[in-house]
Amino acid sequence: MQIGRVIGNVWATRKEEGLQGLKLLIVQPVDVKGNPVKTQFVAADRIGAGIGDDVLVTSGGSSRYIMRDNPIAIDAVIIGIIDSTEVERGEIDESSNWDD
Amino acid sequence: MQIGRVIGNVWATRKEEGLQGLKLLIVQPVDVKGNPVKTQFVAADRIGAGIGDDVLVTSGGSSRYIMRDNPIAIDAVIIGIIDSTEVERGEIDESSNWDD
Amino acid sequence: MQIGRVIGNVWATRKEEGLQGLKLLIVQPVDVKGNPVKTQFVAADRIGAGIGDDVLVTSGGSSRYIMRDNPIAIDAVIIGIIDSTEVERGEIDESSNWDD
Amino acid sequence: MQIGRVIGNVWATRKEEGLQGLKLLIVQPVDVKGNPVKTQFVAADRIGAGIGDDVLVTSGGSSRYIMRDNPIAIDAVIIGIIDSTEVERGEIDESSNWDD
Amino acid sequence: MQIGRVIGNVWATRKEEGLQGLKLLIVQPVDVKGNPVKTQFVAADRIGAGIGDDVLVTSGGSSRYIMRDNPIAIDAVIIGIIDSTEVERGEIDESSNWDD
Repeated sequence: MQIGRVIGNVWATRKEEGLQGLKLLIVQPVDVKGNPVKTQFVAADRIGAGIGDDVLVTSGGSSRYIMRDNPIAIDAVIIGIIDSTEVERGEIDESSNWDD
Repeated sequence: MQIGRVIGNVWATRKEEGLQGLKLLIVQPVDVKGNPVKTQFVAADRIGAGIGDDVLVTSGGSSRYIMRDNPIAIDAVIIGIIDSTEVERGEIDESSNWDD
Repeated sequence: MQIGRVIGNVWATRKEEGLQGLKLLIVQPVDVKGNPVKTQFVAADRIGAGIGDDVLVTSGGSSRYIMRDNPIAIDAVIIGIIDSTEVERGEIDESSNWDD
Repeated sequence: MQIGRVIGNVWATRKEEGLQGLKLLIVQPVDVKGNPVKTQFVAADRIGAGIGDDVLVTSGGSSRYIMRDNPIAIDAVIIGIIDSTEVERGEIDESSNWDD
Repeated sequence: MQIGRVIGNVWATRKEEGLQGLKLLIVQPVDVKGNPVKTQFVAADRIGAGIGDDVLVTSGGSSRYIMRDNPIAIDAVIIGIIDSTEVERGEIDESSNWDD
């Protein structure tokens, strides 16, 4: 799951079937230090995430499994709202240039 | 789902089975400010998107679920036409260089 | 689906079960202007694509659906041979540097 | 499977159904020399991995298969704790700049 | 399928269920000229690939289909050992800088 921050909302009236009523949020991927990485995307949310929340996002085919009996055409879903993280000091190389 | 802008059409007479009659559009991925990011790709469209529309695109295995009883070999489908977005001021670092 | 150009052939005698007889082509991903982007890959072909053809390629889990009753372990398949594309002038920023 | 190093923990009280009790670890992708590459992500763990362990991570739709009869919405799972690796000398170009 | 070169072995005693006895190899992705690109990863092998072999690798959800009746949590599998490739002269732009 990637770590992201909820930064906005998106509205779309015209949608594929099965997506009516699904809340959609704009997510900015971040690294463990909270720095933005990669391009923003849109994820479905059913657990009440809001602007500013740090969240866990499941991408790809697994995300449609939030609708067990009725899989829908989504590829990103917020599966958790992060309370806290703990990263071991020294386990990441601060001076590295992490290209994605 | 990634955000993209519909920029063109593509025609292909010779196709795999099951894809006849499926409308295909060229999509330019964009960030939340509308700036182009990454390479253009082709997505199926069943909701009537047109050139210039900002759209939500589902990629990967979930996209074949638009044909519930008859999954087809596609990996990108337009699932919504964006009416508007709202991004919280300050939630994204304007000066960052977001490479993908 | 990504846009690519067929640039070569690949032969592999020793293969996983289910792949015997499947034609494999080397594809160079290209952008809408035909410029090469990203690394070449190998895609299955059942529709008769040949060297120099511009094609549409489905990647990931959906690609195994070309063998409906007998899904096989492939992750890229040519699903269409492009006849022509039409891109709206001005819809893409010519001066942008599109990193992938 | 990608190679990664476990660098931390993440806690999320509010979660999608089916994820209660699942241990979540922060993983830093590394190359064969142990150098960090790409952005950190979060993976489920059921085999007892801990901080500092080098692990094998399965991403995407296959990761939900750790729960055979009850697939869940996760996209990364630790499937092995690495005891040792052996890389043939000369098989990788030491001077290459491997951008992802 | 991506093209890769087998560069090493990896051992992991503690593993998820279903992976016992599965041979795991370290693969360096390469382009059509054999130059390394992107980060090394680990793929399952059932066809007898060895160090130095150039191979075809299927990634993502399709890779679990090598175990038809018993899908397992893997995301990369070697599906073929390359005998030879043939790339059309002039079909790739030698001077291009292919970023991934």
